[in-house]
Amino acid sequence: MTREELIEQIRKKRSFLCVGLDTDVRKIPSHLQRAEDPVYEFNKAIIDATASSAIAYKLNIAFYESLGAFGFAVLERTVDYITQNYPEILIIADAKRGDIGNTSDMYARTFFEHFKVDALTVAPYMGSDSVSPFLSYTDKWVILLALTSNPGANDFQMIKDEQGKYLFEHVVEKALSWENSDRLMFVVGATRTDMLERIRSIAPDAFLLVPGIGAQGGDFDALVQYGMNDDCGLIVNSSRGIIYADNSERFAIAAADEAEKLRRQMESALIGRGII
Amino acid sequence: MTREELIEQIRKKRSFLCVGLDTDVRKIPSHLQRAEDPVYEFNKAIIDATASSAIAYKLNIAFYESLGAFGFAVLERTVDYITQNYPEILIIADAKRGDIGNTSDMYARTFFEHFKVDALTVAPYMGSDSVSPFLSYTDKWVILLALTSNPGANDFQMIKDEQGKYLFEHVVEKALSWENSDRLMFVVGATRTDMLERIRSIAPDAFLLVPGIGAQGGDFDALVQYGMNDDCGLIVNSSRGIIYADNSERFAIAAADEAEKLRRQMESALIGRGII
Repeated sequence: MTREELIEQIRKKRSFLCVGLDTDVRKIPSHLQRAEDPVYEFNKAIIDATASSAIAYKLNIAFYESLGAFGFAVLERTVDYITQNYPEILIIADAKRGDIGNTSDMYARTFFEHFKVDALTVAPYMGSDSVSPFLSYTDKWVILLALTSNPGANDFQMIKDEQGKYLFEHVVEKALSWENSDRLMFVVGATRTDMLERIRSIAPDAFLLVPGIGAQGGDFDALVQYGMNDDCGLIVNSSRGIIYADNSERFAIAAADEAEKLRRQMESALIGRGII
Repeated sequence: MTREELIEQIRKKRSFLCVGLDTDVRKIPSHLQRAEDPVYEFNKAIIDATASSAIAYKLNIAFYESLGAFGFAVLERTVDYITQNYPEILIIADAKRGDIGNTSDMYARTFFEHFKVDALTVAPYMGSDSVSPFLSYTDKWVILLALTSNPGANDFQMIKDEQGKYLFEHVVEKALSWENSDRLMFVVGATRTDMLERIRSIAPDAFLLVPGIGAQGGDFDALVQYGMNDDCGLIVNSSRGIIYADNSERFAIAAADEAEKLRRQMESALIGRGII
């Protein structure tokens, strides 16, 4: 997917919502548990219910791997379902991979060629040659961890070097010097809006994937104020707040409502910035 | 596996060799390609040929994932084969996982409960709560990336803070303050023997998993000098040098020879240090 196609979709759907398919078989409504493949049936219903509000789906690979070989087949079927029915939607594999060159090359083949996703989250710790095999796919996106939203983010990402530069700033700056860096996006935790200005000063144009936004206002407004650029530049993910909004037979309707609620909030922000 | 069992195995086999099963279906000898499951047949032959020289097997998950759902089944069968035939041997899943708490928890269940490996490599970038779900399995091992051997290791791991401390030193020091830190090992690249002293001063007792050692002498001698402790404290991995030592029908014999060559070198080092 090109940058232009992504921006076009954002303008058309008036949304920058990503729905996280962190589907836990233990949390699926009981009436679906009788299906032959409950996770796939659940995913299909959620996708159909939210596709008009969402510009991206993020599949958390851990949840599929936990089912072993069967989970990989469910992942394959879910990606196929999105691709065939909603080809305009960006499919992100949230896998946070990253290893020495020949191993990253294997992971790239797995996710980009076998599963055929559009984007993959990658961990930066091992540096350039652990990321470059992913960047060599110039029709795909690499979403590099920069500043995450979990408590442990403080442990290492916020370490300052001798010049007062944070580790996450090094990561963004260095990564933008790598070949095909126009294929990079960055993971930036929404709870760190105070740090968004720093990231935007290094990477004014890059898209940021923002996890952990709920329907409430405060964080969202700051995110838009400090994180949005003229092309939007944001993809905001919500997982549990949407897919587990209701645990009864009307789970898909509830998911659609939650997704649409977020989309409307995003529409206002896009109008406010003059993007639509 | 307990620390005592690991040390006992090292003393008994007079070895600290880990054989890396980075099995690439494209590199398997042609006569095995006709088998129903070439990767599994290859792994079995390599395991039988090297089990007397090795104290650990490391399965590079990328190589299995690249085969999709089928690859996961091969992984399951390979782990079962080692467990049933060589129960004393440490099984490491080299996956370099690490994510927010509930996701790391899923990965932990996958590798420790479903695949039943003894140890997992984990990436530290996201900090404490991304690692603690793995450490909560007190009969398993968490092998945290500290200083890797690839060129990109310089990009971030060698960044110095205001006090002149490297990022990899922060990682080791901080991790040792976490709960159940006695279940930690660290990945330390063999090409960084000059940095081994720094790591040993922070973590004198921890086992270090060292990738990328060949049969040649220089690096190995420095590794023993600066990295070995009174319990050995080293697990040295070799992958391609052993498993692809020969590409003909005698591949397993060649693998046994290479593994035994490394084991003898390790035996000398263990004798030199007075461990055996």
